[in-house]
Amino acid sequence: MRTIHVIGIGAGDPDYVTAQAISALNDTQVFFAMDKGDAKGDLVALRRHICERFIDRPGYRFVELPDPKRATDVPYEQAVADWHAARARLWAQAIETELGPDDVGAFLAWGDPSLYDSTLRILDRVAEHVDFEFDVIPGITAIQALTARHRIPLNDIGEPVLITTGRRLREEGLTGAAVVMLDGECSFRTAAPDTRIWWGAYLGTPDELLAHGTVAEVGEQVAEMRAAARERHGWIMDIYLLRTAD
Amino acid sequence: MRTIHVIGIGAGDPDYVTAQAISALNDTQVFFAMDKGDAKGDLVALRRHICERFIDRPGYRFVELPDPKRATDVPYEQAVADWHAARARLWAQAIETELGPDDVGAFLAWGDPSLYDSTLRILDRVAEHVDFEFDVIPGITAIQALTARHRIPLNDIGEPVLITTGRRLREEGLTGAAVVMLDGECSFRTAAPDTRIWWGAYLGTPDELLAHGTVAEVGEQVAEMRAAARERHGWIMDIYLLRTAD
Repeated sequence: MRTIHVIGIGAGDPDYVTAQAISALNDTQVFFAMDKGDAKGDLVALRRHICERFIDRPGYRFVELPDPKRATDVPYEQAVADWHAARARLWAQAIETELGPDDVGAFLAWGDPSLYDSTLRILDRVAEHVDFEFDVIPGITAIQALTARHRIPLNDIGEPVLITTGRRLREEGLTGAAVVMLDGECSFRTAAPDTRIWWGAYLGTPDELLAHGTVAEVGEQVAEMRAAARERHGWIMDIYLLRTAD
Repeated sequence: MRTIHVIGIGAGDPDYVTAQAISALNDTQVFFAMDKGDAKGDLVALRRHICERFIDRPGYRFVELPDPKRATDVPYEQAVADWHAARARLWAQAIETELGPDDVGAFLAWGDPSLYDSTLRILDRVAEHVDFEFDVIPGITAIQALTARHRIPLNDIGEPVLITTGRRLREEGLTGAAVVMLDGECSFRTAAPDTRIWWGAYLGTPDELLAHGTVAEVGEQVAEMRAAARERHGWIMDIYLLRTAD
């Protein structure tokens, strides 16, 4: 049967790729890629770099999947659901066309496939249209990259940590510690001034930016660095850990 | 100056080791190891296996650090703090004795050094006694291993996930989704019967155990599997994701 690997390639540094991911990369004939927006060029380049560096035998190929537009005139959850359904149809078609009955395909996921990534959700729907087996190869998340680059523990001793989004942080506030992802609006500025923040962007890459301090000390500086970097690169991926004052 | 790598070696499967970790392993002369309790034999064996498999040149060595006892007659936080202080003194002594001025040492952390691991906290204190530089190499956490082996996303679309402990879950209950670690008491049994659970133990190893369903369906079965496996191996490392019913 057709096999699909969903491979977490880590969050930025090609050296975050695991030995298991390297085996899966070398086992793959067809890499399916879908990219969107301004980050497209850089992310495609990173993926190609990883393949070139870690795959021993040539002969693999990339198949670009068209990315359906996400509606902006319906509620967010509905828009995402419709978009996943449209993607599922396109992916099923591509898998059927591009993979022979015993071929191996792969989707490469930035970071880890489990974290704010839609690949697994869409593949579940693809399975309604076409038969395949699949496995998941975990990758280093931006959370691990953030704490490693700041050389800090994620949690206080025995304490919980919330993984959340900028929107949720704005709506629900901060209790204890939270890692915030998908935040285009510098929502840390809504936290108390003595909240500690550890921020990172383009983690593990030559463009990496890091900052830490209290929100009062570094909040505005981070917002400015973020805007300037986004302007310069055309895209940004950033993440931060917040912890309330003791 | 002396250099210390704090290397996340992933949560179970030796193939979870990253290319970055492999470089750091090969750069190291002295591996400091501290192990405690019943898991000692298996964890030491896993570390030695990883070193043998991924290190190209011989000549590295292991230095075992004695592990001070943790007091049981004082409050938990105090016991942990005292224990970290005692460890810091022992580690500082070992680093000074075992590493020459330009040597490279390493601590290998199960999973990732940021997550419910004390190495970074203790190293901060070691720095009060001896000079060294250090860096942190991220590793695949048990959370990533759990979701990869179950082939599931960690979060629902746009939703948060709490990383917490068994004790916290019992005290605070479940809201939305939570990954529970360090739970010796099957605290998922305190969740509503229709709560969904994805459980895994010895993830990524030949002894791996997986179960999923609602707490009503599989809760008792997981508790029994867990007790039997713990009895058989003499130790267990397990983790689970809970999600409230829709």
